[in-house]
Amino acid sequence: MSRVMSSELRIIGLKCPRDIAPGADLAQIIVEAARAQGVGLTGGDILVVTQKIVSKSEGRLVDLSTVAPSAFAAQAASLLGRDPRVVEVVLRETRRVVRMDHRAIITETRHGLVCANAGVDESNVAGDDTVALLPSDADASAARLRRGLGELAGVEPAVIISDTFGRPWREGFVNVAIGVAGMEPLKDYRGQPDAEGHVLRATILAVADELASAAELVMGKVDEVPVAVVRGYAYTPGEGTASQMVRPRERDMFR
Amino acid sequence: MSRVMSSELRIIGLKCPRDIAPGADLAQIIVEAARAQGVGLTGGDILVVTQKIVSKSEGRLVDLSTVAPSAFAAQAASLLGRDPRVVEVVLRETRRVVRMDHRAIITETRHGLVCANAGVDESNVAGDDTVALLPSDADASAARLRRGLGELAGVEPAVIISDTFGRPWREGFVNVAIGVAGMEPLKDYRGQPDAEGHVLRATILAVADELASAAELVMGKVDEVPVAVVRGYAYTPGEGTASQMVRPRERDMFR
Repeated sequence: MSRVMSSELRIIGLKCPRDIAPGADLAQIIVEAARAQGVGLTGGDILVVTQKIVSKSEGRLVDLSTVAPSAFAAQAASLLGRDPRVVEVVLRETRRVVRMDHRAIITETRHGLVCANAGVDESNVAGDDTVALLPSDADASAARLRRGLGELAGVEPAVIISDTFGRPWREGFVNVAIGVAGMEPLKDYRGQPDAEGHVLRATILAVADELASAAELVMGKVDEVPVAVVRGYAYTPGEGTASQMVRPRERDMFR
Repeated sequence: MSRVMSSELRIIGLKCPRDIAPGADLAQIIVEAARAQGVGLTGGDILVVTQKIVSKSEGRLVDLSTVAPSAFAAQAASLLGRDPRVVEVVLRETRRVVRMDHRAIITETRHGLVCANAGVDESNVAGDDTVALLPSDADASAARLRRGLGELAGVEPAVIISDTFGRPWREGFVNVAIGVAGMEPLKDYRGQPDAEGHVLRATILAVADELASAAELVMGKVDEVPVAVVRGYAYTPGEGTASQMVRPRERDMFR
């Protein structure tokens, strides 16, 4: 029987130690985790890393006992049934409130991302009174990690920093890319003829988001797999940033 | 060196013939495509199938030369810079208009999905004057395909029917699941302790959407790979439906 060549992708989860302290060298942790699992990283790989371990290694943690809620934070917390100190931290990370309802504040963050609670994370953080903030510049975090891998392992895979976002209209969270290095996050099919020979219209795929979602499938929420290697995807090398995936306000019907 | 067990997922694209006619037996086409590529399907696999070939096989095609636009369709088409006949078809598939702007109509479809243009598809359809509608019941289409695979190949993988949706706030399209059979589309982590021993709060992952996004990465837009096999993901077997991933209006801040 003649074999048809298949396109195939592999996604390999990397277990990492759970106690990642401020100042920890993520590149070294990842290189060691890959070595322990017998995964030899290559420049064609895409490394997807959860925001959580990036934030921890960058010391983006807030001790809630040091937070004094503003009058507005206290009122909003009462409306939403939330901890006023957490709401205060959320507001400090917020440039603009998009909606407030159903226990959530939908925010435009200081980085320009639109997401619930400015990405402030109350789970998987050491200490009940500690929350984690998003990296202050996740594209820069991704680039730094990529350089570190180059220095330690001699290869520079593309890097995606992922976070778990809700969506309007749809139930459940999915992982998206909040930081990118070494690749273009959007794939533009406009002007290419489709399988029927027509020219495709508005078809730009957010492949970095799809890669982040794919990686989540080997991570899980309660496991200790904060990193995944995606192998076999022909990404477009480039200087892309995650902000290219944030729709400008003037083109956004839902802000 | 001791090896740590890794979680690993494979995604294999299946090439299929491009001329899928109304009445075509998708189960047979997929079984033959898998055989030609040497991929033996198993009940643990998840088969992700693009809406397009499902719609084609179900004859969900509209010849625009038979469509008479209503007065509203003509006015809206003029505002949006669109073909009035396409707008008429979109409106016929629409229960409620959520927004109209930027050349798009964001709709709540007759099936309850919220998406642009009621999922009406102008690309990759035979004939310039033909558009494809969504399957009338994509969960039923998925279940039928799953039964067909069981009869032909003796295995019943989970089945997801995917479509390419835009998102508020973010640029680029991603694949999501509009039909599901044999699995639960949402994975609920609530009440499970996280890696730090805290109980996770509101963490429900839309794994069927993530699987659809992952599958898109081996499909591409202009290739002839409308089917992907996801292997190694421990899905939860069940009678789930894609409608479980549509947020009810009363809990939706953006409708």
